[in-house]
Amino acid sequence: MTDLFARHRDRLDAAVAACATREFHSAFDESPSPRVYGETAAAEGQAAFEALLGGDFPISTPGSDGTVATEKSPYGLPLDVAYPRARDLDALLGASTAGMKAWRDAGPEARVGVCLEILDRLHSRIFELANAVQHTSGQAFVMAFQAGGAHALDRALEAVAYAWVEMTRVPRAARWEKPGKRPITMEKTFTAVPRGVSLVIGCNTFPTWNSWPGLFASLATGNPVVVKPHPGAVLPLAITVQVCQEVLAEAGFDPQLVLLAAEDPADGLAAELAVRPEVRLIDFTGGNAFGDWLEANARHAVVFTEKAGVNTVVVDSTDSFAAMCQNLAFSFALYTGQMCTAPQNVYLPADGIETDEGHKSVAEVAEGIGAGLTQLLDEDARAVELLGGVVNAGVLERLAGAGSRGEVLVPSREVAHPSYPDATVRTPTLVGLSADADAEVYESECFGPVAYLIGTSGTEQSIELFRDTVQRHGAMTASVYSTSPAVVEAMRDAALDAGVALSENLLGAVFVNQSAAFSDFHGTGANPAANASYTDGAFVSPRFRFVQSRRHV
Amino acid sequence: MTDLFARHRDRLDAAVAACATREFHSAFDESPSPRVYGETAAAEGQAAFEALLGGDFPISTPGSDGTVATEKSPYGLPLDVAYPRARDLDALLGASTAGMKAWRDAGPEARVGVCLEILDRLHSRIFELANAVQHTSGQAFVMAFQAGGAHALDRALEAVAYAWVEMTRVPRAARWEKPGKRPITMEKTFTAVPRGVSLVIGCNTFPTWNSWPGLFASLATGNPVVVKPHPGAVLPLAITVQVCQEVLAEAGFDPQLVLLAAEDPADGLAAELAVRPEVRLIDFTGGNAFGDWLEANARHAVVFTEKAGVNTVVVDSTDSFAAMCQNLAFSFALYTGQMCTAPQNVYLPADGIETDEGHKSVAEVAEGIGAGLTQLLDEDARAVELLGGVVNAGVLERLAGAGSRGEVLVPSREVAHPSYPDATVRTPTLVGLSADADAEVYESECFGPVAYLIGTSGTEQSIELFRDTVQRHGAMTASVYSTSPAVVEAMRDAALDAGVALSENLLGAVFVNQSAAFSDFHGTGANPAANASYTDGAFVSPRFRFVQSRRHV
Repeated sequence: MTDLFARHRDRLDAAVAACATREFHSAFDESPSPRVYGETAAAEGQAAFEALLGGDFPISTPGSDGTVATEKSPYGLPLDVAYPRARDLDALLGASTAGMKAWRDAGPEARVGVCLEILDRLHSRIFELANAVQHTSGQAFVMAFQAGGAHALDRALEAVAYAWVEMTRVPRAARWEKPGKRPITMEKTFTAVPRGVSLVIGCNTFPTWNSWPGLFASLATGNPVVVKPHPGAVLPLAITVQVCQEVLAEAGFDPQLVLLAAEDPADGLAAELAVRPEVRLIDFTGGNAFGDWLEANARHAVVFTEKAGVNTVVVDSTDSFAAMCQNLAFSFALYTGQMCTAPQNVYLPADGIETDEGHKSVAEVAEGIGAGLTQLLDEDARAVELLGGVVNAGVLERLAGAGSRGEVLVPSREVAHPSYPDATVRTPTLVGLSADADAEVYESECFGPVAYLIGTSGTEQSIELFRDTVQRHGAMTASVYSTSPAVVEAMRDAALDAGVALSENLLGAVFVNQSAAFSDFHGTGANPAANASYTDGAFVSPRFRFVQSRRHV
Repeated sequence: MTDLFARHRDRLDAAVAACATREFHSAFDESPSPRVYGETAAAEGQAAFEALLGGDFPISTPGSDGTVATEKSPYGLPLDVAYPRARDLDALLGASTAGMKAWRDAGPEARVGVCLEILDRLHSRIFELANAVQHTSGQAFVMAFQAGGAHALDRALEAVAYAWVEMTRVPRAARWEKPGKRPITMEKTFTAVPRGVSLVIGCNTFPTWNSWPGLFASLATGNPVVVKPHPGAVLPLAITVQVCQEVLAEAGFDPQLVLLAAEDPADGLAAELAVRPEVRLIDFTGGNAFGDWLEANARHAVVFTEKAGVNTVVVDSTDSFAAMCQNLAFSFALYTGQMCTAPQNVYLPADGIETDEGHKSVAEVAEGIGAGLTQLLDEDARAVELLGGVVNAGVLERLAGAGSRGEVLVPSREVAHPSYPDATVRTPTLVGLSADADAEVYESECFGPVAYLIGTSGTEQSIELFRDTVQRHGAMTASVYSTSPAVVEAMRDAALDAGVALSENLLGAVFVNQSAAFSDFHGTGANPAANASYTDGAFVSPRFRFVQSRRHV
């Protein structure tokens, strides 16, 4: 066991250091280039993915009954992978907890070593994972490789690094000597004790990126993990569980410390699992309704939620109008806006903004963003690599309804996928709204490729609306465009009040919807969109407790 | 502001280091000796305390209406101190939050500097505080000085040290440079943002020791604090709030960042405050009923509770029978067993134990403990210095009812206080119970001077009962006496399973009911007696969030 720790020690140390400096760091190369991963890696990964299609996924789930095959590729590729359907929760949770004590007693080094080895093995299957993420989430291949592969591995590593720091900030043993006429000497032992079963509830759009931080934070701190994937995105997490089990078994631990709990969407498995007394930790990514339900009903557990919010851009002025429009267009288009971090509400003065290209009316800003979208998306073959596919029918419905209020400034268009004729691909739409008249539209999340240009009485109202909307409805991201230091400063202040991360004047190859592991916090836990952040101390430290013993020497 | 930080920097650094090594550390001398504190300190402190009696405590509470004088000294000393009665919560919480933004923006150094200065000022009033703790909790003077003064200050310092570590593990600013064909450079700013109003709900028995960790963890991380004392122990926290306000004002902050919210017991103020949306943190010490209610109903807040449990001793064998009995007798007698850490259930084989004085039956063990109690408590003048006074009528009632089931092995006796004729002082009673027949008696806490000797079928059953009882009903402490390494090892294992700290073969001047700041964790958060521990990362990190901003360089 400890040799796994030694093998990956350098990677761990570098990750720990990066979490402290918040400087750039990445342990897993984000480029799918053959120069990085070898000439055969892409084809082998695709073949491995294809070999899984149309069959029973090779995994067993205690207490399962029959199988489910619930995934549907947004690209139209038939998947038909069958997974054990979790039914008997006594059997499931009994198996989950069976190996917990040995896992606890193995200590931080052994557990972290196993987790780091798992990440290494997942990395060796990154092309297979990328295909699995692509054909469940609808992300384009390169994005699936990056966000679903390399970046997700970095986020997982970050969680393991935090777990290591948290568990080792107290020594395994200490000698306590109280001075005095009669000095007292005691020896003390401190053990990190896990809370209990950790339930990880995956989402459809980012099955790995959003699930791995909680999974690895829990596993490294000693908790068994039950992974309940979204029925639409099981395969990436099935592969994950398979790799976890393989490494656990090789290292001499119970492989069932990580279990896959697949379901038919009608089973309501997550809700059933969440209220089981064995479940003491829950990581959830998804909609507000179920996230709020979990927070209200799974009170015996520590619940980490990432729900929905209203991501906001305040546009005041810019000295790079074209670059601003381009940057915004990219953020709207990336993965068809199906990101919890994609911007939705653009507040700007109804009488327009000052730019390096002169005064621009709201219509002209819309035109500028529209031009940016055209430049990115006018060729179908290029467009699909940025947009990916529409993940489910709900997104299409919201897109269809988006013009019913306000003015459609930039319409959405259908894109034909050159390789997958059955793929559903759409470009974003931009809708003009009024700050005062349309609050009930823009104050709730319209998940998908819909953005609102909202005319305000001026930047002061824009910032006030930003602060207020985020405080009441939450947000994962915010950004501002302004040439005025005072406006930027006011936005920083409002962002602190609202508890949301702020990006300022993004013009180049950084986008508000992207966060970098080891440096950017994803979510803050300080507004209604999420009660947790990837990854900070509060995301990891409640997953275990120190239990001590002491004796005279 | 920063000069306060510089002034106390060495004290902070030493505390931070001690938290990491868990070695002995104390910043505040526990000896009330004139050689330590000066010849006049004791008399001056007593005079300062007496000057407060019979008058309006000099503090104002926004939204108060009239005053309350609810304290009653267990020693019979008339107190009659009147405090503003908190009534209008809009006014109270409005005042509480008014200074929050400036306090947030001041940053960790300024906040920690203010907190450390407050501790220094409280230390300069330690004799006054000791008198206030003595005459509200009933603790004997030396204990009030130590547990309510020096040790409480150490625990508060520990919380500030943790807050400092948590807030500074991420730098204030970072430069992020992503390499590549076109390198990207960003500057990032990270700000610790508080959650909101922190409600500290004090208890009757340890008004300072149990309230200060939460108060200072919250204040240092940027949250305003509303202190709701137990109606029976207001004065020590009123002095605390007074000192906080004094230092905050001197440092240029809103003194109302810390407010006193005193009440009439019938007001139900804590419950009313707990569900206010402004309140985002709650620290509670007290009974299970209200603690459970808070956990269930104040779900918008992070709730830290320290409730009740069943503290357990497993006696298997000993090579120091007399010392074991002496140590147990002291633990039962200290502050009349009115400690959340006092042992209650002693499991031992019904057919007796092996000792250095030969085989001892249960009756002989009871006799041994009885002899230990006699040695400690037979002289009234000495007894009162260990026992202190009975804190309230509930303790007397439970003591009276303790013999109704089982056999009274050692009876309680009334002690006459030589200085306070009206004081209510009692010695502990020891009641013999059967493991199999009397579970419903020993499975719940009987707070006060009642301990049970519970005959089991053997040590194996003793350990099983320990594990089971603590998992279901919680415990703050546990201890074991055994000459067998295998038994000690089995108890360590059971203590990890039950999530409770274990003391092994305590024979000298360390007692199971005492925990040392910077080294021992108080409570684990891993069993039903408490969901938090003083002080670990999980006690501090949820009190604030990092909110970042980023920009191109």
